[in-house]
Amino acid sequence: MALVVQKYGGSSVADASCIKRVAQRIVATKKAGNDVVVVVSAMGDTTDELLDLARQVSPLPPGRELDMLLTSGERISMALLAMAIANLGHEARSFTGSQAGVITDSTHGKARIIDVTPSRIREAVDAGQIAIVAGFQGVSQDSKDITTLGRGGSDTTAVALAAALGADVCEIYTDVDGIYTADPRIVRSARQIPRISYDEAMEMAACGAKILHLRCVEYARRFGLPIHVRSSFSTREGTWVVSDPYSEGTEVEQPIISGVAHDRSEAKITVVGVPDKVGEAAAIFRTLADAEINIDMIVQNVSAAATGRTDISFTLPVNDSQTALTALKKIQSQVAFESLLYDDQIGKVSLVGAGMRSHPGVTATFFGALADAGVNIEMISTSEIRISVVVGQNEVDTAVAAAHRAFDLDSDQVEAVVYGGTGR
Amino acid sequence: MALVVQKYGGSSVADASCIKRVAQRIVATKKAGNDVVVVVSAMGDTTDELLDLARQVSPLPPGRELDMLLTSGERISMALLAMAIANLGHEARSFTGSQAGVITDSTHGKARIIDVTPSRIREAVDAGQIAIVAGFQGVSQDSKDITTLGRGGSDTTAVALAAALGADVCEIYTDVDGIYTADPRIVRSARQIPRISYDEAMEMAACGAKILHLRCVEYARRFGLPIHVRSSFSTREGTWVVSDPYSEGTEVEQPIISGVAHDRSEAKITVVGVPDKVGEAAAIFRTLADAEINIDMIVQNVSAAATGRTDISFTLPVNDSQTALTALKKIQSQVAFESLLYDDQIGKVSLVGAGMRSHPGVTATFFGALADAGVNIEMISTSEIRISVVVGQNEVDTAVAAAHRAFDLDSDQVEAVVYGGTGR
Repeated sequence: MALVVQKYGGSSVADASCIKRVAQRIVATKKAGNDVVVVVSAMGDTTDELLDLARQVSPLPPGRELDMLLTSGERISMALLAMAIANLGHEARSFTGSQAGVITDSTHGKARIIDVTPSRIREAVDAGQIAIVAGFQGVSQDSKDITTLGRGGSDTTAVALAAALGADVCEIYTDVDGIYTADPRIVRSARQIPRISYDEAMEMAACGAKILHLRCVEYARRFGLPIHVRSSFSTREGTWVVSDPYSEGTEVEQPIISGVAHDRSEAKITVVGVPDKVGEAAAIFRTLADAEINIDMIVQNVSAAATGRTDISFTLPVNDSQTALTALKKIQSQVAFESLLYDDQIGKVSLVGAGMRSHPGVTATFFGALADAGVNIEMISTSEIRISVVVGQNEVDTAVAAAHRAFDLDSDQVEAVVYGGTGR
Repeated sequence: MALVVQKYGGSSVADASCIKRVAQRIVATKKAGNDVVVVVSAMGDTTDELLDLARQVSPLPPGRELDMLLTSGERISMALLAMAIANLGHEARSFTGSQAGVITDSTHGKARIIDVTPSRIREAVDAGQIAIVAGFQGVSQDSKDITTLGRGGSDTTAVALAAALGADVCEIYTDVDGIYTADPRIVRSARQIPRISYDEAMEMAACGAKILHLRCVEYARRFGLPIHVRSSFSTREGTWVVSDPYSEGTEVEQPIISGVAHDRSEAKITVVGVPDKVGEAAAIFRTLADAEINIDMIVQNVSAAATGRTDISFTLPVNDSQTALTALKKIQSQVAFESLLYDDQIGKVSLVGAGMRSHPGVTATFFGALADAGVNIEMISTSEIRISVVVGQNEVDTAVAAAHRAFDLDSDQVEAVVYGGTGR
């Protein structure tokens, strides 16, 4: 008998009929001989409606109260789901994050899970019950206040709970049937990826693929927990996220590139004319860290010998831009940089693939494809299994399609054609 | 510095603008030098909307899950109210029933409060914060499951919390400015009652007056806690419910009759031809108790000597009628009664007043007034400070008005004119 943790997102439980359908799916998993624990998000637009109510009473609601408010969303969906399962003749119990033992720090709105002590969940499972757990929420260790985990929080709840329970798999249900080689809305010939490594899934998530959130994959990797990303609208296999997707016994040969991700949610700031001295870059990024801004790509060129000055560019979430610019202006005289440039009309396109480690020429093929498509590259950043470029925002679609085609991800045959080049 | 517990019902927090108005009122109480703890119900129609959702997924939802669902209602209103107060520059913290230490038994849907351990509320108050507590909800002592207190639950939460905190007063805010001598929709000249005893308020509540619930007054009486029933739309004094409203120092002379209550929510069942033997009535009411039916009035006449049989009539909530009739039919052969009569076109009219203890002739005046108004009396029941009659449902308004007039409750002068009679 396997222990399966299933996570259903807001669109899977958007209304009563959706909830009844999900209930049937859960019962089918139970009937197939599994123990089942379910993590559920708030129904459809509930969170937005609650945020709207909050804005009506206060322009800047305290984080503690906002968390108290928002967590009512999962409370509604989980109770309804438990009722729908009971109506199918199976016993179900719903639990808040606090009841499920999801212990977090006290950072309201984006709390981090410190520990999961799911004794009540285990008791319910041992009693043959289906446990329904509120995603996205926990209780703070210090003050016992209700917290929320921020974006992608329900996925993180599911994986953390699955790890704490020693589950065999964490199934993440969504409205598509897995992770694709590119966004199918941009590349119509994009293919579903049957198996992918944690590292690749993390790079995809970090580079804008919306299916899985970075924190949830990080958590799964730490505990070696398999994630199965599936559609709640079909029963076909989705994408398995595992530590070694191409180990013996799997039929699929490792591709060079697993997928092409893109992200339009960032902006670019360039700090112009930074004196090329020890500690200047550190001062800049310490200032940004103190303002709680997450930096993504950073590029610094060699300084011009004539001036002894260099330019530092970085990308960041567009919503954090004003805070960052304000913070940087405050240290302009201290650091003695010349000026700030700001551009929010950018997009990031990333190639992700563990296979690029052993294949030279990926960069050359990628850049060649972009050049042939007339796309200008503004910034470049690489990791061991990823190459990202920043391009103009209106060139993102063209760049994604060109890269997807260049690495033959369109075709059924998973083998990249790599043209010469100096390797990387 | 006084500690004031205030309770606001669903209509007082129906939307964002209502919540902001209530927040101002709370802040004004705080600014006047009081410590303030607030108990709040769910917004307007929230509970009905949640019940509707529940019905869409299950015809008979489990009580535990229904409680989990419904308690999201207060979670929303209390968080919004805390935000609105914060927006006025005062620190407010919201707490669930569980966080506020409202410990109940495990009877989902109508749990009883076993204990209140409000250490977190006291900490908040001691820190100068305004504590906002979810009404209507608690946590069960045994299973740590979320429970609801049933009808009037928020009032009970407020009084129980006020008692546990040793508050100086529990203010119950509603949409009228206190308890009236009769329902002003029926008797336009009905007057607000400035002070009333716990006993009278309990009889009024038990007899259909909707303002205060029986359980909440019971609780207040047990702890000697003053209740102040007020309008959330005005600042004038409402009705004070206290142990001795006519003690020295109060200017108001004790009236004979405090008010006339009515109730259209009951039905009448008559068990016809019950053998007049020891234990037959007990068998009937044991059966009804096992079916968890609350009986109100019971009338049994002396048995007819010729037959050795008697009729037993009782009233009960109209919603419980089918259950009661089914249960009684099952014991018809055992008890050997002849038949069952059922009437749901009844209404109950009650005179309540501690003063009737020392004034003879109240019954005669009451019955005389009903006779003059052409109202036929079907059943009579009395307590030390109450006389209730059952009349035809379409005669309730006439009976209430006639009684109100007969005891001069219409006029400003609070003195009843009692005509002769044998006294009671």
